[in-house]
Amino acid sequence: MIIKLKKNIESRVLDEMKLQLNAFHIKKDTQDLLITSSGIKELPSVFEKNIDDQWVFDSDMQLSSKSFQNTKTEIDLGTVKIGGNTNNTVLIGGPCSVEAEEQIESSAKLLKELNLSILRGGCYKPRTSPYSFQGLGKEGLMLLSEMREKYGLKIISEVRDATHVKDVIEHTDIIQIGAKAMYDQGILRACAQTQKPVMIKRGFGTSLQEFTQAAEFVLSGGNPNVILCERGIRTFETKTRFTLDLCGVAWLQEFSNLPIILDPSHAMGYAYGVPALTKACLAMGVDGLIIEAHPDPKEAKSDASQQLNHQEFKKLHQELVPLANSLGLNLV
Amino acid sequence: MIIKLKKNIESRVLDEMKLQLNAFHIKKDTQDLLITSSGIKELPSVFEKNIDDQWVFDSDMQLSSKSFQNTKTEIDLGTVKIGGNTNNTVLIGGPCSVEAEEQIESSAKLLKELNLSILRGGCYKPRTSPYSFQGLGKEGLMLLSEMREKYGLKIISEVRDATHVKDVIEHTDIIQIGAKAMYDQGILRACAQTQKPVMIKRGFGTSLQEFTQAAEFVLSGGNPNVILCERGIRTFETKTRFTLDLCGVAWLQEFSNLPIILDPSHAMGYAYGVPALTKACLAMGVDGLIIEAHPDPKEAKSDASQQLNHQEFKKLHQELVPLANSLGLNLV
Amino acid sequence: MIIKLKKNIESRVLDEMKLQLNAFHIKKDTQDLLITSSGIKELPSVFEKNIDDQWVFDSDMQLSSKSFQNTKTEIDLGTVKIGGNTNNTVLIGGPCSVEAEEQIESSAKLLKELNLSILRGGCYKPRTSPYSFQGLGKEGLMLLSEMREKYGLKIISEVRDATHVKDVIEHTDIIQIGAKAMYDQGILRACAQTQKPVMIKRGFGTSLQEFTQAAEFVLSGGNPNVILCERGIRTFETKTRFTLDLCGVAWLQEFSNLPIILDPSHAMGYAYGVPALTKACLAMGVDGLIIEAHPDPKEAKSDASQQLNHQEFKKLHQELVPLANSLGLNLV
Amino acid sequence: MIIKLKKNIESRVLDEMKLQLNAFHIKKDTQDLLITSSGIKELPSVFEKNIDDQWVFDSDMQLSSKSFQNTKTEIDLGTVKIGGNTNNTVLIGGPCSVEAEEQIESSAKLLKELNLSILRGGCYKPRTSPYSFQGLGKEGLMLLSEMREKYGLKIISEVRDATHVKDVIEHTDIIQIGAKAMYDQGILRACAQTQKPVMIKRGFGTSLQEFTQAAEFVLSGGNPNVILCERGIRTFETKTRFTLDLCGVAWLQEFSNLPIILDPSHAMGYAYGVPALTKACLAMGVDGLIIEAHPDPKEAKSDASQQLNHQEFKKLHQELVPLANSLGLNLV
Repeated sequence: MIIKLKKNIESRVLDEMKLQLNAFHIKKDTQDLLITSSGIKELPSVFEKNIDDQWVFDSDMQLSSKSFQNTKTEIDLGTVKIGGNTNNTVLIGGPCSVEAEEQIESSAKLLKELNLSILRGGCYKPRTSPYSFQGLGKEGLMLLSEMREKYGLKIISEVRDATHVKDVIEHTDIIQIGAKAMYDQGILRACAQTQKPVMIKRGFGTSLQEFTQAAEFVLSGGNPNVILCERGIRTFETKTRFTLDLCGVAWLQEFSNLPIILDPSHAMGYAYGVPALTKACLAMGVDGLIIEAHPDPKEAKSDASQQLNHQEFKKLHQELVPLANSLGLNLV
Repeated sequence: MIIKLKKNIESRVLDEMKLQLNAFHIKKDTQDLLITSSGIKELPSVFEKNIDDQWVFDSDMQLSSKSFQNTKTEIDLGTVKIGGNTNNTVLIGGPCSVEAEEQIESSAKLLKELNLSILRGGCYKPRTSPYSFQGLGKEGLMLLSEMREKYGLKIISEVRDATHVKDVIEHTDIIQIGAKAMYDQGILRACAQTQKPVMIKRGFGTSLQEFTQAAEFVLSGGNPNVILCERGIRTFETKTRFTLDLCGVAWLQEFSNLPIILDPSHAMGYAYGVPALTKACLAMGVDGLIIEAHPDPKEAKSDASQQLNHQEFKKLHQELVPLANSLGLNLV
Repeated sequence: MIIKLKKNIESRVLDEMKLQLNAFHIKKDTQDLLITSSGIKELPSVFEKNIDDQWVFDSDMQLSSKSFQNTKTEIDLGTVKIGGNTNNTVLIGGPCSVEAEEQIESSAKLLKELNLSILRGGCYKPRTSPYSFQGLGKEGLMLLSEMREKYGLKIISEVRDATHVKDVIEHTDIIQIGAKAMYDQGILRACAQTQKPVMIKRGFGTSLQEFTQAAEFVLSGGNPNVILCERGIRTFETKTRFTLDLCGVAWLQEFSNLPIILDPSHAMGYAYGVPALTKACLAMGVDGLIIEAHPDPKEAKSDASQQLNHQEFKKLHQELVPLANSLGLNLV
Repeated sequence: MIIKLKKNIESRVLDEMKLQLNAFHIKKDTQDLLITSSGIKELPSVFEKNIDDQWVFDSDMQLSSKSFQNTKTEIDLGTVKIGGNTNNTVLIGGPCSVEAEEQIESSAKLLKELNLSILRGGCYKPRTSPYSFQGLGKEGLMLLSEMREKYGLKIISEVRDATHVKDVIEHTDIIQIGAKAMYDQGILRACAQTQKPVMIKRGFGTSLQEFTQAAEFVLSGGNPNVILCERGIRTFETKTRFTLDLCGVAWLQEFSNLPIILDPSHAMGYAYGVPALTKACLAMGVDGLIIEAHPDPKEAKSDASQQLNHQEFKKLHQELVPLANSLGLNLV
């Protein structure tokens, strides 16, 4: 249940309500809200005089639901906005991993050349083997910060676990919580303490219900700037790396109020399929696309097979522009 | 292995090769072909003088593979062509089930009004419960035939099992083999004996490898007119009916030579998601779309929740036209 | 809804009820039953005087449910019984495919030596490729019949599609409907017309709900002798061929009244795992086990990797006996 | 590649090898080992004189593989041993969450009464919703420690994220890394720094390959005391909470050298199926079983539906004893 409190509520009463209802207390726009478990369907009558409005839910998808907030959340990055009623589709590009200054600068220049806004690059790689390249860590974050300064790009990078979450929050413009980390409350609760935008990737074994509930960890802690990212789920099919769940995206568009970014690169796992899938994603009218591109994919230290080279990325961009136009979307 | 025989091969030698290699013999265009298991990687040297060419494969996806035939197969329905180098995307419409003359005629008029070419409607419904509506059977086929005559539309309808396969072959223009019947050799082998186009739907638990091998049953029997249809696979996600596998479609576009039709209606299971998904499918550049539409969906005897009403179908068509134009595709 | 009719119901009234309720009419033991869609929750009051009892259901799992018949169905094969309150666990053995007389006779002798009752062997193989060995067909059924005569064994063999269902019904003691054919109404309806036991294998993409509804096709047609067989479902895990769903078996034991046979050979796909899994299956207290064994697995024409050799089968039998004893089960 | 170093290797050479091969260095029993990526198949010839032995692998499942260490690892908890050649099967019991002193003491007494050794109880619950009960945190760990002192039981409890991993390491005898946290390198690397036993649960979307690689994070850091726990994977079937993957367990038994504990409670999600599944697990000959039991399940603050009450747990124990005896296993 979400409860909108009266403006003049006494702090003593508020504290009692929070305690008795085991509720989160946040301010959202001009509203003062309490959020309880969706199991609570009715407010004790003693509290009724303290509230202006209330919303009852079937499940714990509450703050992120259209039945609470019917308009899409807008994320303001300063130079660019995501979601809301902007009709923007951000095309985020960059390598899987930040590997070296020259490499990431090459990516930054590519984006700049195409008038794009956001650079991606992993520094803390959530590899499934200890024997693989694990990322440059904080050194990578510093290289990304350099690119922000030099090229005026916004930066998105992934947090792997709670031990370095503060560094990622500090040095990025959008904090990415990866598919393997999205249940991590150490990360989610830290991201709830900031106002920086957070992009949560759906785990490959994660239901849509759980996905939106991960967002609730951030939203109920007071950070409204959450973006959802579908990047493929694990199914029986092995010819492709994962299965991009666009039916799930249609569900999110219908029932959630959060902006949506799609990641066809990880879903497909092979560069040959990325252009066609990216067009499909764009045609769904989503708020963003995140595409892996590397100056020299076959030399990449991670995800070599799925990254586009810069020539392919430019060609894809060129094909997306008329498609975006015909759909009334701005590719930024 | 596929073997291209010399023109002047003696029938005695041909018979011996077929027997010894346990091979299928077909004529394709002007070629005389033998097809064996892909386990055979080398031809016995005694036969070498009888062949013009040979292709070796990693798997039993042979006739349907780009490594055998690099161009997309064209299906000629007379009034309309599918695949090949036509840049056509057929928009097939109609109800889940043929229920009554008035209903199916309403569907036929809708298609005619929009200048579309192919009418769908199920007569033998592969329901999972014996207690559900099972379809009108041959009576339904007769109603569809009437629509063909009256409106000049082509007809696609589904065969449920081998007991009525001859009727479906006789009365349709495209034989649909449904997701639950696609391993049925009684059906596949019967469809191999005709030259009528066959659209094979991927089973919801079927791998891409098995999917293309189902096509091989028809192709190796001598019918080259096979279309593949992706309609959603079964995954852990239950908010939507199935999960449309567009990564799999990208794989098929890369490795198979068969035209592809997509069915977002069955994948999604809910009408609200069908328009966005249909646009995504179109943007992938596929050869066809099959969309369920019913004059009055809430009264439908099957799949009530996923059928568009005719107003929604027209609106979707209107949105698809500029998208198709921007992609260089003809919506027919 | 299942309706138990009064003994003296007039045939005119019965016909009217069948027509109006769109119901199946069967005799079960001494009862006269009508079965309608589970969507019908209440009987029209005009019919109330004609009935003795009625059962209402949440889903179309009706005749197969414990809420209709609380005791497990018993299948009587003459020489051996399955299910009911027998505490029997049948250990069915034999090769994947019947390949030759010598081979199948070797299997028959093995079973005889161990005092087992039922011989398996495929004749119509539902291969996913047209280029693989497809089985001996009717010739195989004849060889199995010979083994029945010579060794007093009961025979189970699989029907692939509706074109040969009559032959399989005629020449087997248990008709097997395989995982790929279990939605095939041509087969299911034919099996409903006989009283021969039918073992339905769960499709690898089939939900438990659909699985029991496949049984309803046979039961509602008047054949009560249905056995369910779990043989592994398709999941994201590829180290093993399928994933044996013993949680699903626990659900079936709780909610269905049909005997259950488990097939660890197909689930695992590799002989090394079959003994441990077979013990797990036995410990669940199921009514039967079906294990593939071949005199010389590496020469087998199908499923070479998962078949035990006869030495391994004997060793497994030896280990199962004390386990069965400790569980109070008879291995027959 | 795993490399066994010569005893007398100079530290300068060792450092150079580590650096050049990007290798982990551990001492295991009396051996000095370097572990590199499995991508390295051959040692630079300059290093050959410094090694005694080497093992080459197909994948990064190296230290945990039977091809490196053919015997099962033994975990010594002092009062009880797990794995090795003990023939022990530990039956771990206790509630989903530690809720109160009285509750957890009731569980401790139950185990003591049955001569069992290890008490489970969650303190940091990895709930998927922020609005659910999140566990007692450190207070719960203190209650578990009390039970250790008072009843001589060993304690297993779960770490949710890296923010409290030190507390869990300090206050438990076996550190549990849950299904949602098993990719968390903050946790895995912390557990590699201790010698305390670590039980890693397989994620519900985790492949067997990734599962064993999670163990490699701990093993390659120098902690050999790793146990694997299968607790059900997520599949299309929704009648049960998850699908217990016993085929996967057979694979682990064949290819991994780590002890295995099974968790049928979480897999099934419903108490009615737990006894039959537990017997199946025991019959596979695994090293342990972990079963949720609560003094009053319907009042439990988490997982109410799947916990046995104490009467049911005792009855299950009673049925397991003869089964264990017939299998030559000690239930401890």
